[in-house]
Amino acid sequence: MTQKIGVGLIGLGTVGSGIVRLLQDAPSALRRREQANFEIRRVAVGDLTKQRDVELKAPLTTDGMEVVDDPQVQMVVELTGAAPAYEWISAALKQGKDVVTANKALLAEHGEELFNLALQNGADLMFEASVAGGIPIIRSLRNGLVANKVESLYGILNGTTNYMLTQMSRGAGDYAEILKEAQDKGYAEPDPTMDVSGMDAAQKLAILCRIAFHCTSTGGDIYCEGIEQVERRDIEYARELGYAIKLLAIAKHRGDQVEARVHPVMVPVDSLMANIHNEYNAIEVVGSAVDTQVFYGKGAGQMPTASAVVSDMVELAERKVCGAGSAIGDMILGEEAMRIAPISGIETRYYLRLVVADQPGVLESIARILAEERISIASLLQKERDLEGGSVPLLIVTHEAREEAMQRALGAMNALAAVEDEVRRIRMEDL
Amino acid sequence: MTQKIGVGLIGLGTVGSGIVRLLQDAPSALRRREQANFEIRRVAVGDLTKQRDVELKAPLTTDGMEVVDDPQVQMVVELTGAAPAYEWISAALKQGKDVVTANKALLAEHGEELFNLALQNGADLMFEASVAGGIPIIRSLRNGLVANKVESLYGILNGTTNYMLTQMSRGAGDYAEILKEAQDKGYAEPDPTMDVSGMDAAQKLAILCRIAFHCTSTGGDIYCEGIEQVERRDIEYARELGYAIKLLAIAKHRGDQVEARVHPVMVPVDSLMANIHNEYNAIEVVGSAVDTQVFYGKGAGQMPTASAVVSDMVELAERKVCGAGSAIGDMILGEEAMRIAPISGIETRYYLRLVVADQPGVLESIARILAEERISIASLLQKERDLEGGSVPLLIVTHEAREEAMQRALGAMNALAAVEDEVRRIRMEDL
Repeated sequence: MTQKIGVGLIGLGTVGSGIVRLLQDAPSALRRREQANFEIRRVAVGDLTKQRDVELKAPLTTDGMEVVDDPQVQMVVELTGAAPAYEWISAALKQGKDVVTANKALLAEHGEELFNLALQNGADLMFEASVAGGIPIIRSLRNGLVANKVESLYGILNGTTNYMLTQMSRGAGDYAEILKEAQDKGYAEPDPTMDVSGMDAAQKLAILCRIAFHCTSTGGDIYCEGIEQVERRDIEYARELGYAIKLLAIAKHRGDQVEARVHPVMVPVDSLMANIHNEYNAIEVVGSAVDTQVFYGKGAGQMPTASAVVSDMVELAERKVCGAGSAIGDMILGEEAMRIAPISGIETRYYLRLVVADQPGVLESIARILAEERISIASLLQKERDLEGGSVPLLIVTHEAREEAMQRALGAMNALAAVEDEVRRIRMEDL
Repeated sequence: MTQKIGVGLIGLGTVGSGIVRLLQDAPSALRRREQANFEIRRVAVGDLTKQRDVELKAPLTTDGMEVVDDPQVQMVVELTGAAPAYEWISAALKQGKDVVTANKALLAEHGEELFNLALQNGADLMFEASVAGGIPIIRSLRNGLVANKVESLYGILNGTTNYMLTQMSRGAGDYAEILKEAQDKGYAEPDPTMDVSGMDAAQKLAILCRIAFHCTSTGGDIYCEGIEQVERRDIEYARELGYAIKLLAIAKHRGDQVEARVHPVMVPVDSLMANIHNEYNAIEVVGSAVDTQVFYGKGAGQMPTASAVVSDMVELAERKVCGAGSAIGDMILGEEAMRIAPISGIETRYYLRLVVADQPGVLESIARILAEERISIASLLQKERDLEGGSVPLLIVTHEAREEAMQRALGAMNALAAVEDEVRRIRMEDL
């Protein structure tokens, strides 16, 4: 019989309860891993009086630091996403205690510092649950694909927005209606900003970029555009052109820098990424040796997230029994860190939707603006007039163009009197 | 500077050369893993005089056992798939040397024995490359999904047959034509039996079943039906019904047994598995905590396979530096092994294609046979006569029925004078 490992839980909400349940019900695989012999010894909660659907022998406290400081606790599992998480995790690592967390914001913001702190104290900091829930993408990138230089990575990393775009593409309503429905069903938060703005996906991309591209970036360094401006008619026009609209997190090697961005993207309808529906997540990785791989599954939810946390706990347990020290040297970048390239330098294809006055000379003006910026038109479609007052929608798909040239062209087009609404621009990727 | 790990390679063909190249070119990720400090010290090849496109300082030999016995070799990488692999690997493990292999046939046949041998000698036996090439499915099942009871698993595990079925579904030719084309392109072996019969997929499924279902089975225990009988017209009829035909490796928990089988399957056209094309592999895993996950990528080829082998080498290197012993206790099943359920007990839906004489009473006879076996018809389609001599094709899709009942019904239908060709039966899965 191996020694029990004392676990301290900070947070006993949805995911925390899921972890307790997984450890208590220990599926057969888990029972076969001798070292995965956990005992939950102290638990921090927000409200001591709340009724819970899991039974625990461990004492409860409202003070996370009591969990960290408990000498019976060797492994701290932090699940709150709350502000003091930084203090709890730093304190645990300083005491040489291993930490498992799902806290993407914290890792995106303070990753380098916390990984260093862990290494200096012979502790480990594991975070499989921070990106894409139950999908083992962190360990696949760190271990399974270790022999690859990652060339590019495309992720559907936010289930809420993917659910919304799926529903919009199925004609279930426009943005505001679908958002309300998602909120009613609990798929979207009362304040949906982090999700719909793309910031949640950007934080997750920052974590993936550290592993895949050796790039230190906070979520804030990553160009980020949400789905708030995606309209049903763009989804319909995209389909006519053979594309679906997805919120993608994209990262690519570009010379000695890394391109990293989150924004709506038109992807070919028959690509795998176009066929990731509803709340599902997927990550497409292009590696130098393996070529294209896709990892697909549920990116959130109680049990998928708990599954990821427990997988980290088991790995730590097995590593510590053999007396290993910290194994996160690969996560620390220091001087070798790659830089994020500014968005102005990316080159991609663009879809443009203009609403223009139905009068002679308009097309010529637009074509001249694009030509001046050396943006080449791949296809152009003037739709039948479907708006009141003599306006017509004009759809343009460009060949590869530089973002800064496109920015200038957009400015010039928006300044034309005949262009009635702001020009809508959606970037494209040929996956 | 950490100590170098002496590696012995047995086999320097396509994959072996790929490994040498990966280690020499060490992508940035690999360079960041200090312990992954390998030196190839001896290499066994079939032909000493052959020109090779990699440069090696290590001495060559034609005797695999010399590699195993070399005291400078701490880790043996076996890549031949040849008959003496069993002796080489056993001998290495007995000496406490770690082994990495891509040899699926050997693991499917002698897994329990070899894993035991490794454990007894404090050695490890790693085999990521044995299933699905570069896709990290072995470590995902063993580690990433460790907290899950796997409920079912569906795999496209053979690239050759998936390429052939894809080409057939695109109208590129019938079975014989496509097989010849695949052989000309090098996608199929001169003797394609292992691939087209499903045996290759069955061996891989046996390995996955050990991990996911704790089930000892050799490839031979698994019901296996190849693609030789798949006709273009069935692919076309399937499409009319909303299905694609794929060669799937399927395993499911059924009570205290495991259902495991490889055969052509009709899957819904909009499922992810229907959209895995050409030589790509995919594995769909349904786990108790994570629900459905899919892993997609190249299942064969020089660099994807080499990537998997090197990922195993790195994991071993990092584990051994911390003084860890064997970590394959989870792979040994002993008394706890689950059993494979006989195919006669499975329950599934069936597609049947009959060619019947265009005369009164035939449909009644067929319907009576199915009714006697309590097989319920979900849909029935009598096609226009498209055959000479008064025969018509009749397509039947059943509700869930038991395999043994279907076997009896097939026997009875084939015995009818009005049934002209052998009834074609394809099982269905609603993924």
